[in-house]
Amino acid sequence: MSSVIRFGISLDKNLLESFDALISDRGYTNRSEALRDLIRDELVRREWLSGDVVAGTITLVYDHHTRELNARLTEIQHNHHSVIIATQHIHLDHHNCLEVIVVQGTPQEIEKLASRLKAARGVKHSSLTMATTGKNLL
Amino acid sequence: MSSVIRFGISLDKNLLESFDALISDRGYTNRSEALRDLIRDELVRREWLSGDVVAGTITLVYDHHTRELNARLTEIQHNHHSVIIATQHIHLDHHNCLEVIVVQGTPQEIEKLASRLKAARGVKHSSLTMATTGKNLL
Amino acid sequence: MSSVIRFGISLDKNLLESFDALISDRGYTNRSEALRDLIRDELVRREWLSGDVVAGTITLVYDHHTRELNARLTEIQHNHHSVIIATQHIHLDHHNCLEVIVVQGTPQEIEKLASRLKAARGVKHSSLTMATTGKNLL
Amino acid sequence: MSSVIRFGISLDKNLLESFDALISDRGYTNRSEALRDLIRDELVRREWLSGDVVAGTITLVYDHHTRELNARLTEIQHNHHSVIIATQHIHLDHHNCLEVIVVQGTPQEIEKLASRLKAARGVKHSSLTMATTGKNLL
Repeated sequence: MSSVIRFGISLDKNLLESFDALISDRGYTNRSEALRDLIRDELVRREWLSGDVVAGTITLVYDHHTRELNARLTEIQHNHHSVIIATQHIHLDHHNCLEVIVVQGTPQEIEKLASRLKAARGVKHSSLTMATTGKNLL
Repeated sequence: MSSVIRFGISLDKNLLESFDALISDRGYTNRSEALRDLIRDELVRREWLSGDVVAGTITLVYDHHTRELNARLTEIQHNHHSVIIATQHIHLDHHNCLEVIVVQGTPQEIEKLASRLKAARGVKHSSLTMATTGKNLL
Repeated sequence: MSSVIRFGISLDKNLLESFDALISDRGYTNRSEALRDLIRDELVRREWLSGDVVAGTITLVYDHHTRELNARLTEIQHNHHSVIIATQHIHLDHHNCLEVIVVQGTPQEIEKLASRLKAARGVKHSSLTMATTGKNLL
Repeated sequence: MSSVIRFGISLDKNLLESFDALISDRGYTNRSEALRDLIRDELVRREWLSGDVVAGTITLVYDHHTRELNARLTEIQHNHHSVIIATQHIHLDHHNCLEVIVVQGTPQEIEKLASRLKAARGVKHSSLTMATTGKNLL
């Protein structure tokens, strides 16, 4: 179990007013939560630089009519199956599929998989989202 | 149906060698596909600036033990149900959940939903991935 | 003149320890200054979205031997002189120049200038840095 | 000297039309130059990951009235003088200064300097722009 610590920070009045306007616009109901989010975002960026195990998602958009693309994507995913947790598939329209692959592993492993998928012919778009396992962000 | 056009580009020899090394390292087997990916990435960035309908994913990591968080996340998603296509949920460990929400709508609507979810107390990490409906990226 | 306000924020002990390690590594000597920097970064991002007057820098790297490039860059800058404050020029080596153009204006004007400069033949690299006039970041 | 190589790429007609519209809007007069810029941007991103010598700029905005800030910034820059090429200073208004520091060195050295400067009390904004020495982008 982890305990909560309270400490004070000092801020220029004008800066605080701008910050309060920003976070209220984003739907925050208190400053602590907004500041915690800023802090966690910095820590997640660092996790990805550190080489420790992280979680993330790879989003693909592709035309499933492209010859042999399904087979190719399946082959690539099997070659990297140890970092893949689960996949979700959406039929955007008659041609376009959106697939989200949830991954967990070292940044290097994940980036290698993401770049292999992006390089497959017929994949129109691929992006890697850097998330976190949450373990160090209690 | 769309037809394929072939045209020539001229590149300095050294620049071409660096590019060939880069794309081979990323798993591309031909230059056209690598160049198409660079072009599509630029077009997707523009789609998100233009205000047209786009697709994307919102990735959340949260501790499902946080009091009332599940109810809050469900409520927010229902308030924005028209932009949500589907959700996938992963149990990362005893505490941490990773949830991927596939969305389609205007960038403004999507960003509003993403910022509401991020602001919910107990959400440790939230990121918005800008993908595409693929319609204009034949 | 602006006054300083002090308020409390509550943070999980583990999260605070990670944050303290991060900021000490970056050379911060107190948490308030680190948190102020996170807040200001968010506010600067918003300034660039709001359309208000901002400041920034455009960094160019180019080979000054490219035929007519100097004339072209000068022409572009004169066409947008109202947003340019000053320029600094560095001779990186026999071929390569690095030029930093300090700009102030609306994001739209600045982005238009940056994209014109980038498009000039012979410009090897161009990047736009989003800074601030500092007026709203007291 | 480096020679120019010409090769063909094939693109779907619709994709090519979108690309042509995008680059004409950005001020490009031919496709080759636009594609070269996309390629170089990828190569510069890789340079920064590779650890080789790169060039860049650090942009600071600060209130020069902050007690001892000038002395502190000068001290930090002297501690890292080997990576600093030149500095330009702009008086934005009565309070705010914008300073651009042109740097050359390994990404690690440059990022350390940038993070020290950002951490100094009174610096309102600091951003690091990743540019290039241009040597490998002939």
